[in-house]
Amino acid sequence: MSKYWSSLVENLKPYVPGEQPKMANLVKLNTNENPFGPSPKVIEAIQKELNDNLRLYPDPESKALKEAIAHYYTDHGIKPKQVFVGNGSDEVLAHIFQGLLKQDKPILFPDITYSFYPVYCSLYQVESETIPLTDSFEIDPADYKRPNGGIIFPNPNAPTGRFMVLQHVVEILEANPDSVVVVDEAYVDFGGETAITLVNDYPNLVVSQTLSKARSLAGLRVGFAVADEELIEALNRVKDSFNSYPLDRLALVGAVAAFEDNQWFEDSCNGVINERERLTEKLEELGFEVLPSKANFVFTRHKEKAGADIAASLREQGIIVRHFDKPRISDFLRITIGTSDQNNSLIKALSEL
Amino acid sequence: MSKYWSSLVENLKPYVPGEQPKMANLVKLNTNENPFGPSPKVIEAIQKELNDNLRLYPDPESKALKEAIAHYYTDHGIKPKQVFVGNGSDEVLAHIFQGLLKQDKPILFPDITYSFYPVYCSLYQVESETIPLTDSFEIDPADYKRPNGGIIFPNPNAPTGRFMVLQHVVEILEANPDSVVVVDEAYVDFGGETAITLVNDYPNLVVSQTLSKARSLAGLRVGFAVADEELIEALNRVKDSFNSYPLDRLALVGAVAAFEDNQWFEDSCNGVINERERLTEKLEELGFEVLPSKANFVFTRHKEKAGADIAASLREQGIIVRHFDKPRISDFLRITIGTSDQNNSLIKALSEL
Repeated sequence: MSKYWSSLVENLKPYVPGEQPKMANLVKLNTNENPFGPSPKVIEAIQKELNDNLRLYPDPESKALKEAIAHYYTDHGIKPKQVFVGNGSDEVLAHIFQGLLKQDKPILFPDITYSFYPVYCSLYQVESETIPLTDSFEIDPADYKRPNGGIIFPNPNAPTGRFMVLQHVVEILEANPDSVVVVDEAYVDFGGETAITLVNDYPNLVVSQTLSKARSLAGLRVGFAVADEELIEALNRVKDSFNSYPLDRLALVGAVAAFEDNQWFEDSCNGVINERERLTEKLEELGFEVLPSKANFVFTRHKEKAGADIAASLREQGIIVRHFDKPRISDFLRITIGTSDQNNSLIKALSEL
Repeated sequence: MSKYWSSLVENLKPYVPGEQPKMANLVKLNTNENPFGPSPKVIEAIQKELNDNLRLYPDPESKALKEAIAHYYTDHGIKPKQVFVGNGSDEVLAHIFQGLLKQDKPILFPDITYSFYPVYCSLYQVESETIPLTDSFEIDPADYKRPNGGIIFPNPNAPTGRFMVLQHVVEILEANPDSVVVVDEAYVDFGGETAITLVNDYPNLVVSQTLSKARSLAGLRVGFAVADEELIEALNRVKDSFNSYPLDRLALVGAVAAFEDNQWFEDSCNGVINERERLTEKLEELGFEVLPSKANFVFTRHKEKAGADIAASLREQGIIVRHFDKPRISDFLRITIGTSDQNNSLIKALSEL
């Protein structure tokens, strides 16, 4: 370690995102990007802003975007002051860890989950305890009834894709009235059900989402959280002590437009869901076990072949999927739902293995 | 304070950026935006990317941009591994505070300086000591020869606009071989001289810059730092423990294009410098004292009238400048250099007061 580093730097084990290779003709099924692309209205909105205002700072409060998101959830009584926005849901989650989950007691999250959570813990020196998923890779709400400084889990969970019904989320919320419970809904739009409907009933609930998946804007970096005003105030204080303008002008107008084109959004989600069901059947025919998924990926293992070997063979054929060399899941592959053509290429390659 | 907040949240006093009002025909001289706008090549590059790839994540390492910046400073032997990029120089500075300036001893910065520094200190619980500027509002290097955990100052300083010659920067670097010295060069391109030329001689030097001012891309959110590889490694570790992709695809290609159009950049800087000299003369004729500025703003006080009163009168006429209600500088106004027309409107309004 350098004598110039702050002491925490040495022990950081940074998150490693899925690779973004630059090879042409790659079947890229490793980072859960949406094959359908963003709404043309997003492109139009950015186009317009591009020719106007790039020399000027963006709105530091992102008011138009908060209003668009609140409007989208208006049936559930969400107000703009209950919305927080950030540079991708990763930034939103980071502020949640620093502003809400850093407590005297350890926070709880599943043993198999989004691997950024332990990284945030080391960045902000948050104590944590991991709770094993059940043998069928599900979150059991009964396991979250112990003293804690906060709880966080994705729903659907990553990388399993399994969705926990909202009644179980309620069970966790009610068992933990003194803790913040964060439901990370990066993948909720592919058949899950959002807990944003519960926000006005539970002052300890934070729901985070992203525009990277269902709205196909991974390249634009926009995420958000919805919660009681008091929790959002904590996130605003952290954000305004960190970076006044994390969302640039183009991202802001693009994100607003994405919330205004509901037809595109629904078609895109349905397209992914249909392909997911088709791919699942095909994989099962090929001897794979596929966990029930409500995400834009499937988590699957072959009955005989090792996950790492399959991933390596696929890679030789220009198909990239994600393998996690971790306890309990080292046999599994996480495969993003691609276009029909991409999924066909995958199925063909797997049949030939 | 809410029982759900982390304990640090209550004591945060967030940074308050200059306002971004939405009134039409405003003469907006309050946030140091560049009146000339970005290079048309920036717009073209974003245009192209916009139609291609928004559904895909950006390069988490921002390689192309690091290469463009290293190439720009190639005469000073800067390599891509010596470059760190972030979502505006504010995010870059935040990571510098957390990764390099959080030490056992207090860090040093001027009493009159960028008001985000004390905010970062409270976010990351960094102890600090402020060193008064001289009576002529200059940094005296002799004052920075005392025990410290790090040193940071803008050069030119904000909001004074005063530039410290590089020989004085060297004096500070040599007096503090065990401390990181951060030179925040947000405004260096308007007549100052960059300390990036010194990076390969001083392993304790970090230079940060932004594309918001001289490159007129405040709306795009891109900043960077140049330093010894070992210091950059600390910043990468913090960033990769916080947010994998702080720069979106459009910002990345736009920033690269901005570094490739040197003619536009130089013309833009010269345009600002010429207007600054003209505005300074006019202000002096009107009985203002103007600190010598190497920035895209002037810091000025009237011999008789109070700064707050002048700011309020200008505002009534649709001209917004920035006033800081702080000790030592409450008589001053910070006025961004606008277009010739904007500056003329300002001069006219001041003449009539």
